[in-house]
Amino acid sequence: MARKNLKKEPFNILAMRGEERLRDHIEDMHAADLVDILRDVPVRDAWRILSLLPIDRQATVFEHLDISAQVTLARYLKRSELARIITEMSGDDRADLFNKLSPEEQRTLMPALSQAEREDIRRLSSYPEGTAGAIMTSDYAVLSPDWTAEEALDKLRLEAPDKETIYRSYVVDKQRRLLGAVSLKSLIIADPNEKIEEIMDTSSPSVSLLDTQEDAARQVAKYDTLALPVLDENERLVGIVTYDDAMDVVEEEATEDFHKMAHIGKLATGVRDAAISVLYRQRVTWLLLLIFVNIFTGAGINYFEDVIAAYLPLVFFLPMLIGSAGNAGAQSATLMIRAIATGDVEMKDWGRLVLREVLVSLAIGLTMAATVAMIGYYKGGLEIALVVALSMCMIVIIGSLIGLSLPFLLAKMEIDPATASTPLVTSIADVTGVIVYLGIASAVLNLPV
Amino acid sequence: MARKNLKKEPFNILAMRGEERLRDHIEDMHAADLVDILRDVPVRDAWRILSLLPIDRQATVFEHLDISAQVTLARYLKRSELARIITEMSGDDRADLFNKLSPEEQRTLMPALSQAEREDIRRLSSYPEGTAGAIMTSDYAVLSPDWTAEEALDKLRLEAPDKETIYRSYVVDKQRRLLGAVSLKSLIIADPNEKIEEIMDTSSPSVSLLDTQEDAARQVAKYDTLALPVLDENERLVGIVTYDDAMDVVEEEATEDFHKMAHIGKLATGVRDAAISVLYRQRVTWLLLLIFVNIFTGAGINYFEDVIAAYLPLVFFLPMLIGSAGNAGAQSATLMIRAIATGDVEMKDWGRLVLREVLVSLAIGLTMAATVAMIGYYKGGLEIALVVALSMCMIVIIGSLIGLSLPFLLAKMEIDPATASTPLVTSIADVTGVIVYLGIASAVLNLPV
Repeated sequence: MARKNLKKEPFNILAMRGEERLRDHIEDMHAADLVDILRDVPVRDAWRILSLLPIDRQATVFEHLDISAQVTLARYLKRSELARIITEMSGDDRADLFNKLSPEEQRTLMPALSQAEREDIRRLSSYPEGTAGAIMTSDYAVLSPDWTAEEALDKLRLEAPDKETIYRSYVVDKQRRLLGAVSLKSLIIADPNEKIEEIMDTSSPSVSLLDTQEDAARQVAKYDTLALPVLDENERLVGIVTYDDAMDVVEEEATEDFHKMAHIGKLATGVRDAAISVLYRQRVTWLLLLIFVNIFTGAGINYFEDVIAAYLPLVFFLPMLIGSAGNAGAQSATLMIRAIATGDVEMKDWGRLVLREVLVSLAIGLTMAATVAMIGYYKGGLEIALVVALSMCMIVIIGSLIGLSLPFLLAKMEIDPATASTPLVTSIADVTGVIVYLGIASAVLNLPV
Repeated sequence: MARKNLKKEPFNILAMRGEERLRDHIEDMHAADLVDILRDVPVRDAWRILSLLPIDRQATVFEHLDISAQVTLARYLKRSELARIITEMSGDDRADLFNKLSPEEQRTLMPALSQAEREDIRRLSSYPEGTAGAIMTSDYAVLSPDWTAEEALDKLRLEAPDKETIYRSYVVDKQRRLLGAVSLKSLIIADPNEKIEEIMDTSSPSVSLLDTQEDAARQVAKYDTLALPVLDENERLVGIVTYDDAMDVVEEEATEDFHKMAHIGKLATGVRDAAISVLYRQRVTWLLLLIFVNIFTGAGINYFEDVIAAYLPLVFFLPMLIGSAGNAGAQSATLMIRAIATGDVEMKDWGRLVLREVLVSLAIGLTMAATVAMIGYYKGGLEIALVVALSMCMIVIIGSLIGLSLPFLLAKMEIDPATASTPLVTSIADVTGVIVYLGIASAVLNLPV
C-alpha cells in the first residue's frame, strides 16, 4: 500500500518546489505518517506543511502530535489559526492541549472560540490528571430507549462526522442516567422496527469520573470494548473513554512503572526530547536517598571490621553474596510489581505467594549455595565453603522475601508498588546480606566481632 | 449498571439451588465477569456453569479465559462438547488453543470439526509464536472495489454475526491483493450509489505475516486503527489483527520486558498460577550467571587487598560507591530499554544521547560527590573525602554510560535490549566501581597495590 512505498523513499519533503506538488504529496498520507515528518522539522516548516491540508485533516494531524509538539505549534500559530484547529479537534485532545497552555495563553484563546466549545473545554479540563474524567471525550452519541433501530441509525448517520465513535452509542433516560449501550453492529442486524431498549446491552461496564485512568484502561481491555462510559456521582453519563486512548494509557502506565522501578521521576515527554535539567532532577533525588540506605550497609561492615581484619579474604565474597541477595530480591519484586499492576495478583494472594516464594527461593538458594561452596572451597578451604554456602542460601531467601513483600506493603500503605524498585530492594538486601554473611562468618570461624 | 451491583454482592454462585435460578443469574452477565467467577472454581463447576449458556455465549466466555484455563477445560470436556465450542470460537483464539493441545489431543479433535474449520486452524496455527500471523484472525469482511456503498452494507449486514469486526472491511482485487480499507462509518455516511473504490482509504498501514506481534500492535496504536490487515509475501490479504488483540500484546510485551529486566525467563501463565518448578527454572539461570560476573568484582577487591589492608575504613564506602554506580546505570538502562521498546528512540539517536548522558551524569555525579565528600570528611578527613568524591563522580558517569550503551549494543547484536537488565548493568558497574574506587584510593593515599 501507499504508505510502505513512502517510507522506503528517502525523500526530503521540504525540498519539494511548489505548494501544489507538496500538497499532492501529502494529501493521501496517513495522519500518523505526516506526524513522523512534522516532528523532525522546525515549527515554521511544520506549519507550512500542515497549512496545506483542509482544516479537518489539519486537526486530525495536530491531534496525533505529541503534546509538547502541539504546544510548540500552538504558540507559533496566530490566534485565529489556532482557534480554527481547536474547534475541529476532538474534545479530549483539545482539553489536554488547553491544560498545557499558560493561564495567559488560555485567556487569549478563549474569546476566539464559541460558547459551547469554551464550556466543553472548561468542563473536560477540570478533572485531575490521571483520572478517567481527564482522558474522556464528550463526542459520543446518545440514544433514547424508545426509539426504533431505524430511527437510531438515521440519527447516527447524521451525527457520525462529529463523533469520535458511532460504533458504540449509549442509551440514557431523561435525566441522562445510563441505561445501556448499543453497538452499531447490533443496530444493523436488528429488525428496523425493534426498540432500542430491546437491543441494548445492560451488562457493559462503566467507570466513575474520578476512577484512575489505569482503571478505565484496564476495563476497556478486560471487556474488549470500543468505548467505556464515564458516569458522574449521580450515575449520569458525562463522557466516554475510547479504546485508542485506553491503549495509550496502558503504554504510558507501563513506561511509568519501568521508570519508577529505576527510581526515575515522571517525564512529561519521551526520553528522546527530555531536557538535561529535567533528567537530572528526576534521577538525582532517589540516588541521593539510596546513598543513605547504603550508609547502613557501610555501618554493617564497620561493625564487623574486626572480623574482616582477622580474615581479609572474606571481602572477596562480599560483592557476590550481597549482589545475589539484590538480584534474587529484584526478581521477586519485579514479578510482584507487574502482577499487581496488571491485576494478576491481589492483596488476598499474599499469604499463598509467600509460602510458594519460600519454596522457590529455598531451591534457588540451595543451587547457588552449591555453586559458591565450590568457589569457597577453592579459595579458602572447607570452613569458608561452609560460611559462603550457608550465607548464600539464607541471603537468597531473605532477599526474595523482601522483594516479594515490599510491593504488597507499599500497596497496603497506598503507595504505588512500583516504587519498590530494584534499587531500593537491592539496597535493603545489601544491608541484610552484609549482616548475615559477616555474622555467620564470625560464628563459624570463631572470629571476634 | 448491573455489573457493579453484582461485584459488590458477596455471592457464592455455586450455592444457588436449581439450574434455572443459576441460569437467570448468569444470563445477563458480561463474559469477562463470568470468567472472574470461573477462574476461581474447580473445572467441574466451571463447566456446570458454562454449559447453562447458549452455545455462542459459551464460546465467547471460553475465549475470555486464560489460555491455561482453556486447556484445562478443553481436556475436561467430551470431544463433541469441545468441538461445538471450538466451532463457534473466533479463528485466532481457537488456533491458539489448538497450539497448546498435545499432538494426540489435536488428532482426536480434528475429525469432529468441519473441513473448512480444520483448514482454518491448520493455517492460523502454522505461524511462529510472536509473529503477526500467529495473532491474526480470519474472520474479516472483504469487499470488491466496484460494489456500491449500499451493496457493501447489505453484505456486511448478512455477514456481521460471523465476523470479528465489520467496522473495518478490506477491499481486495481478484487475486485477493489489498487495495484499501473501508470503515463502516464512511459506508453509512456515503451516498448509497457511491462506489467502494471512491470511498476506500488507501493510506492505511498493513503488516506482513512474519512481522513481529509487537510491530503489529505498535502500528495499531500509532494509526489508532480498529484492525490492521496482514499480507502474505505476494501482498495478498490473509488476516487481520484487531485492536483488542493488539492491546493484549502491548500488555504482554511490557510484562515480558519487566521480567527480562530482572532476568526472569518467559512464564507461560501469570505469576499467580506459575508452578514452583517453572519459577525456579526461569529465575535460577541468570542468578548463577551473575555470580560469575561478581567473581570479577571479588577479583578486583583481591587485587587491591593490600590497599584495603593498609586502610580498612575504605571498605565502609564500598557498598555506597558500587551501589551508586549500579543505581545510576540501572536508571539509564531502564530509560533506554523502554524508549527502544516503545519506538521513542532509535539506533541513530545513540550519539546524541551519549553526549547528553555525559552532561546529565556529570551533574548527578557532582551532586553525589558533594554528598559523599561530607560523609567522607566526617569519617576519615580531607584525603578520604577527596578519594570518595572523585570516585563517586567517575563511577556515576561510567555506570550511566554502561547503562545507556548496553541496550543499544544488544539491539545492534539483535538481542532484545531488555536483556540489559538492571542486575546485569549493576553487576558490570560493580566491577568498574571497585577498580575505580580502589585505584583512586591507592593513588591519592599513596598506598601500595
